[in-house]
Amino acid sequence: MAASIIDSSIFQGIFSSDAMRHVWSDENRTAKYVEIERALAIVQARLGIIPQEAADEIVSHCHLDQIDMARLRQQTERIGYPILGVVTQINQRCRDKLGEFVHWGATTQDITDTATVLQIREGLALVDADLKGIADALARLAEAHRLTPMIGRSNLQQAIPVTFGYKMAGLLSAVLRHRERIAQLKERVLVGEFAGAAGTLASIEKGAMDTQAGLCAELGLKQPVIAWHTIRDNIAEVGTVLGLIGGTLGKLSMDVKLMMQTEVGEVYEPYHHGRGSSSTMPQKRNPISSCYIHAAISVVRQHTAALLDAMVADHERSTGPWEIEWISLPETFCLIAGALKQSRFVVEGLQVDAEAMRRNIEMTGGLVMSEAVMMGLGPYIGREYAHDLVYDLCRQSLADRTPLIELLAAHPEIRRHVDRAALEAMLDPANYLGQSGVFVDRVLDAHRRQAGA
Amino acid sequence: MAASIIDSSIFQGIFSSDAMRHVWSDENRTAKYVEIERALAIVQARLGIIPQEAADEIVSHCHLDQIDMARLRQQTERIGYPILGVVTQINQRCRDKLGEFVHWGATTQDITDTATVLQIREGLALVDADLKGIADALARLAEAHRLTPMIGRSNLQQAIPVTFGYKMAGLLSAVLRHRERIAQLKERVLVGEFAGAAGTLASIEKGAMDTQAGLCAELGLKQPVIAWHTIRDNIAEVGTVLGLIGGTLGKLSMDVKLMMQTEVGEVYEPYHHGRGSSSTMPQKRNPISSCYIHAAISVVRQHTAALLDAMVADHERSTGPWEIEWISLPETFCLIAGALKQSRFVVEGLQVDAEAMRRNIEMTGGLVMSEAVMMGLGPYIGREYAHDLVYDLCRQSLADRTPLIELLAAHPEIRRHVDRAALEAMLDPANYLGQSGVFVDRVLDAHRRQAGA
Amino acid sequence: MAASIIDSSIFQGIFSSDAMRHVWSDENRTAKYVEIERALAIVQARLGIIPQEAADEIVSHCHLDQIDMARLRQQTERIGYPILGVVTQINQRCRDKLGEFVHWGATTQDITDTATVLQIREGLALVDADLKGIADALARLAEAHRLTPMIGRSNLQQAIPVTFGYKMAGLLSAVLRHRERIAQLKERVLVGEFAGAAGTLASIEKGAMDTQAGLCAELGLKQPVIAWHTIRDNIAEVGTVLGLIGGTLGKLSMDVKLMMQTEVGEVYEPYHHGRGSSSTMPQKRNPISSCYIHAAISVVRQHTAALLDAMVADHERSTGPWEIEWISLPETFCLIAGALKQSRFVVEGLQVDAEAMRRNIEMTGGLVMSEAVMMGLGPYIGREYAHDLVYDLCRQSLADRTPLIELLAAHPEIRRHVDRAALEAMLDPANYLGQSGVFVDRVLDAHRRQAGA
Amino acid sequence: MAASIIDSSIFQGIFSSDAMRHVWSDENRTAKYVEIERALAIVQARLGIIPQEAADEIVSHCHLDQIDMARLRQQTERIGYPILGVVTQINQRCRDKLGEFVHWGATTQDITDTATVLQIREGLALVDADLKGIADALARLAEAHRLTPMIGRSNLQQAIPVTFGYKMAGLLSAVLRHRERIAQLKERVLVGEFAGAAGTLASIEKGAMDTQAGLCAELGLKQPVIAWHTIRDNIAEVGTVLGLIGGTLGKLSMDVKLMMQTEVGEVYEPYHHGRGSSSTMPQKRNPISSCYIHAAISVVRQHTAALLDAMVADHERSTGPWEIEWISLPETFCLIAGALKQSRFVVEGLQVDAEAMRRNIEMTGGLVMSEAVMMGLGPYIGREYAHDLVYDLCRQSLADRTPLIELLAAHPEIRRHVDRAALEAMLDPANYLGQSGVFVDRVLDAHRRQAGA
Repeated sequence: MAASIIDSSIFQGIFSSDAMRHVWSDENRTAKYVEIERALAIVQARLGIIPQEAADEIVSHCHLDQIDMARLRQQTERIGYPILGVVTQINQRCRDKLGEFVHWGATTQDITDTATVLQIREGLALVDADLKGIADALARLAEAHRLTPMIGRSNLQQAIPVTFGYKMAGLLSAVLRHRERIAQLKERVLVGEFAGAAGTLASIEKGAMDTQAGLCAELGLKQPVIAWHTIRDNIAEVGTVLGLIGGTLGKLSMDVKLMMQTEVGEVYEPYHHGRGSSSTMPQKRNPISSCYIHAAISVVRQHTAALLDAMVADHERSTGPWEIEWISLPETFCLIAGALKQSRFVVEGLQVDAEAMRRNIEMTGGLVMSEAVMMGLGPYIGREYAHDLVYDLCRQSLADRTPLIELLAAHPEIRRHVDRAALEAMLDPANYLGQSGVFVDRVLDAHRRQAGA
Repeated sequence: MAASIIDSSIFQGIFSSDAMRHVWSDENRTAKYVEIERALAIVQARLGIIPQEAADEIVSHCHLDQIDMARLRQQTERIGYPILGVVTQINQRCRDKLGEFVHWGATTQDITDTATVLQIREGLALVDADLKGIADALARLAEAHRLTPMIGRSNLQQAIPVTFGYKMAGLLSAVLRHRERIAQLKERVLVGEFAGAAGTLASIEKGAMDTQAGLCAELGLKQPVIAWHTIRDNIAEVGTVLGLIGGTLGKLSMDVKLMMQTEVGEVYEPYHHGRGSSSTMPQKRNPISSCYIHAAISVVRQHTAALLDAMVADHERSTGPWEIEWISLPETFCLIAGALKQSRFVVEGLQVDAEAMRRNIEMTGGLVMSEAVMMGLGPYIGREYAHDLVYDLCRQSLADRTPLIELLAAHPEIRRHVDRAALEAMLDPANYLGQSGVFVDRVLDAHRRQAGA
Repeated sequence: MAASIIDSSIFQGIFSSDAMRHVWSDENRTAKYVEIERALAIVQARLGIIPQEAADEIVSHCHLDQIDMARLRQQTERIGYPILGVVTQINQRCRDKLGEFVHWGATTQDITDTATVLQIREGLALVDADLKGIADALARLAEAHRLTPMIGRSNLQQAIPVTFGYKMAGLLSAVLRHRERIAQLKERVLVGEFAGAAGTLASIEKGAMDTQAGLCAELGLKQPVIAWHTIRDNIAEVGTVLGLIGGTLGKLSMDVKLMMQTEVGEVYEPYHHGRGSSSTMPQKRNPISSCYIHAAISVVRQHTAALLDAMVADHERSTGPWEIEWISLPETFCLIAGALKQSRFVVEGLQVDAEAMRRNIEMTGGLVMSEAVMMGLGPYIGREYAHDLVYDLCRQSLADRTPLIELLAAHPEIRRHVDRAALEAMLDPANYLGQSGVFVDRVLDAHRRQAGA
Repeated sequence: MAASIIDSSIFQGIFSSDAMRHVWSDENRTAKYVEIERALAIVQARLGIIPQEAADEIVSHCHLDQIDMARLRQQTERIGYPILGVVTQINQRCRDKLGEFVHWGATTQDITDTATVLQIREGLALVDADLKGIADALARLAEAHRLTPMIGRSNLQQAIPVTFGYKMAGLLSAVLRHRERIAQLKERVLVGEFAGAAGTLASIEKGAMDTQAGLCAELGLKQPVIAWHTIRDNIAEVGTVLGLIGGTLGKLSMDVKLMMQTEVGEVYEPYHHGRGSSSTMPQKRNPISSCYIHAAISVVRQHTAALLDAMVADHERSTGPWEIEWISLPETFCLIAGALKQSRFVVEGLQVDAEAMRRNIEMTGGLVMSEAVMMGLGPYIGREYAHDLVYDLCRQSLADRTPLIELLAAHPEIRRHVDRAALEAMLDPANYLGQSGVFVDRVLDAHRRQAGA
């Protein structure tokens, strides 16, 4: 029985991904606990802190399948944290009280924090892989539609032409930066925790720093400069970067939703039989994935704030703020995984209707090309005068519903300088794409550099 | 495999309650869908809109155990919403195509919204029951400790005495208001939805309004004045009231945490063996429940913002905002249920150390009674002069670490008017509790009135 | 020099209103302090707690123009709160040390909280007046366009027809509920605070409760059941209701933005010369007010969460949470006032293009009427068969870009039962508005009842 | 008249700083507009895009004092954005219509975005300077109190000893990372915007890319890879890093508040006459700055979420999301500046009571040293046995209120191995500080490396 949308037997595949749900599952989290206790025993035996015999015995029991999860729940509800339950279970399986050496010198939060970092490492790998997939798909769209004209929109009003490739390249530029952010934050975040009850490692008389260094090395993590039990900028930073990624996916989904409107019809989410269609309204083509993305990232951004809240931790081990992370961090990763999955599905299979894009440019009868015409006439009749003249003809076109070309071609002063063919060229959006192609190339270059790096 | 803390096999009992998790489970939600389709068939047969025979057949299949949940998941992932899957499954179980009359004139969101309202009704009942339990426990504490002196604290500084009963009564006053809020919002929220694709009920030629009225009556809900598919102040209001309740629980847990500090030690969360204690630090008594409450309500308040965001719905059926509710509403209810459960556990079993409260009042050697002394001396030597004199003696007491009583009793000008016994009476916190008892009585009166209503 | 958008000399008229900015200005807040000290002196003289002579002298100096604001800033920065500075200034203006009786028995937060409530009362009056204005304008639009057909949209896809009046009535229904919410919360919020350092009124030996009752009566506020220095559900509730109002304004602005799209063009924000137009793109008609509304309420919803956070107050006078209110409450009111002003401007002057609405219904060549046709043919050829047939013709219509009427009229089986005129009637959106008018009437009734109440 | 706390004539010095308020003032923002128009003219003349004569004339009028701010407000309210007003004013001051070349090929948002980046550059410099000041002060405290014992607290319970220097070093480690984050984000954020109506630079026929490159170089900014009018991860990232900084300041203020409690009394905010003291409660020492910090950063974290919301921008120029930044970005910077100012004041003048720290360690009569004793006895009587024995004696100590040393020294089995002096050594917190000093050194090393870099 699941109450959350993430774990819902009906919706889990929609708002998250199996891989990410596994990362944050009870099973994987507990497996991490066991893995860390195992590594700790190995390192401490190597350093002579615990007997090699004890380490061997402990290691032999450090497997998830040796943990009784139902009993662990009872232990957790009684004690408040699951670590002691795990330690007790391992201990009890060891022969000859050798299990007493499990968890030597560690505190509950050492194991939990390190496990969280290991989960974050797995989670970020999944996020980055999806970002890469999205980046590649956006790059393909940007390249294929480098010069496919569509109308640019400002304030939801048609403005001047752009290209569809240019639009995709803009999104791609953000995705590239997100991958850079992930790479940078890993340096700050993929750091182990092993510090004892108040962070001073007083619980280990000799070899404390060596144990810390060895444990981190064993797990492939960096050694912390100091305990971070209540210094949580690292965890919160993960939340902020996932929030930023969500923002970009939100922008993507917003644009897709708007372009899929019946009145616009320029792109479509990939079509599967029955998907997003209505049994009674055959004209409908619902932007299903975009809806899910919108919702997921709207909640993610609130969890980002919750994770910032969790930073206000008291003293050496906090009284509530830490538990905020327990709720928000898994959910943030799971929701962002869902949003990434849906986004990748959308961009990898996006149906682009270049003809509709062209039709929409033309629906104002040339008005969206007025800036181009003003500039084209400038050399002949003066820029300012051209502006006033064209602006007046545009108003007339709007009022009379007459195509602008007719008014321009009929105007005596304009006819004196340019013929209808020249005017039609000025009104051709393909001639007013500015640096769209250049910008696409710049972003594709950056994409290639990142992929190559 | 669960990834969310709410559904975690380890933590589900800590951050939520079984009853509330059931309310928002796939099973209960789907049961509500079936219940609504059933009621709709009954009402429409009664009104002659569908054949009675069809209704009878439909009703006979409207049971949760007739729904194949695994198939429902596949249908949902393909279509985007679960309702059509449920309808198809019922339909297919009916003989002679009578199932074609299921869901007559309804749209997906009609069923989903009405189901949500039914779940909200169940959820609010659980919330209100816990609020009542908490109110009763607080009332008992307020009454029992009506005149138990403790130090009042302002800015985390000892200020002047209050009573522990007064402190509990303050919390109780808020809980009473929350129950009032719930009663008021039910009038706006426990309203059905049945309106068709765009809310106009165009899909039903005759008896549309009667169907709407009948369906709502059948389910014990109010009839809507107009469709609320994208008018979501009702749903969001539920989120805000849960957020407000969370705020009060947060204040409760904050005070408990602070009073449980080693240096304060005035109250303790109920003790169970092993709960909140440390295997190596026997002096510890961790405020476990308070930590969970703090965390849960910190996330709830962010979901409140998400639910306000969900109000920005487009046109007649929204494109993403609605799905925000799918994520945030169940989670808000589940987390608040966890916080309520923990809070109720705390207040119902709170251990109060009146002796420690007394000791803390006295730890400043009388300084916290200086306001009382100023007022007591006023009639003899003038208020302003008394203020300056006592203030000076207090500073001297702080500097010399001498109890204030000694300085007061030794001061010639004071001795002239009052003797040591009178001074001791002035320094007795029990004599400076002001209207603590009166305020307790006022709140208890209000509690009795609400309980009686 | 202003750094906030609310106080910006450039933007203040856009994101707030002068009236609301005045409510939360330093001047008005300080005037409230003075007004409360004045009322307190009057009441305490009446009760014989302070000399009448002192009250008379105090009252004569309780005017805002007697407060030196520059000095008050210095006092506030030194002490941390402004009240003591105000009290000192009044005191010093009084003759014969009569000023010593100012602020008798009060604590800083008593005055600040009561002032805040007086400001909230003024603020809510402004909010309610704008809500009333918006409700009236929406009612006029609902009535005038009770049967003006437009396309209903679901998931940003054209679905089936509604009326523009119906759309406006939906918004109106929420506004009516907001006014009800404000009326209800006033009972909980318009409550004075007068309780002394820790809320017990110990500072007043005799007449404490009478002073509290008298002061509240003098200010037209309810008497509190107990001090609420750190029981802040009332203040936070104000934030939540403003958040809910913001949600509805956000929905309004979203729909206006979408309907103003170049490709849709159904309504327009009121036109002023130059407003929302572009000097080089004459086809543009920017939804300026809608942009401002969207932004303002997006920030308001986050302040709602901040005000919930402020509820987690410690002990008898909180250490930081209270100050959250100082930041968020004025800003929430100011931003919502801006959003209300812009919304009222929009709905009071909205330009409605019923012809464009009609044009948009027709742009799919009848596909959006397919549900109506299915239902119209049902009695002749069976509902289910009608569904399949019409659905197939719709797909053909989409594929061949042939108007649906042509395919229907040409179909032999259909021709056998209904002629082209009958088919055209089925395809006329005016015949498929369902209960649009009825729902409009229901909401207008509720509006009239509320206005009459 | 100011309504926001930031601009309040009373509170502005408390919740923000003059320097930061200047950065986001109307005056500075407008000065940036003028500076950019000036740079654009210079660059375009250099490239031969506009006449040198025009550039010279324009440059001569590009001064803030040539802008009529009252008129600018009117223009802004009419048009919706201030840029056109500024351009018009400059234009009108130029002779011979040379002003027509102002703003050549630019769009409103080009100037606004670039101005925002220039303001962010100034704002980040102020933030970084305060972070450096705080880092230096924390480093001094960490060094001075490298081995000053205090009790470490877990769950607000006394746990085991740490040192005050260790506590400060933990905070310092986060501040160092924040400075690293700022350095990294500058590479992504200090980027100009110059792209025209839809981002394609179509408005400039020749030299478009050169103009963009030249303008950015002139202003000391990086050239964008593509327009970011609606790709806002850069701006939102600034919000997230300020949110992260706020989290660390919140942790600092939380710890200071808790340590300043009457019952704890280990550190104090700097004392100024009257600051944080009470006129009637001389024992109080209010953590005024900590309250302000707590409140400011609680609101900042909500603005972080608002800035993530602003990323969901539509098409080429957004319809509301952009304006969220107008509200939230200045306020975030101003509030964080206030929090930084208060934090720096606190750490630079913090009063540390090492004696009180010692007293608090001792208040449990040795119980907080039980872990040390267990470890000290281990070699003699076995770890596990030592644990059980000491744990029992601790419980007895708690029950009987007997100092642990007495029970230990009297225990026959213990006496056999160690004498009272040895036991006292075990109970001396100075002998159980673990790696506190080592961790301090590690953080100070990192601080030195950063300062040297």
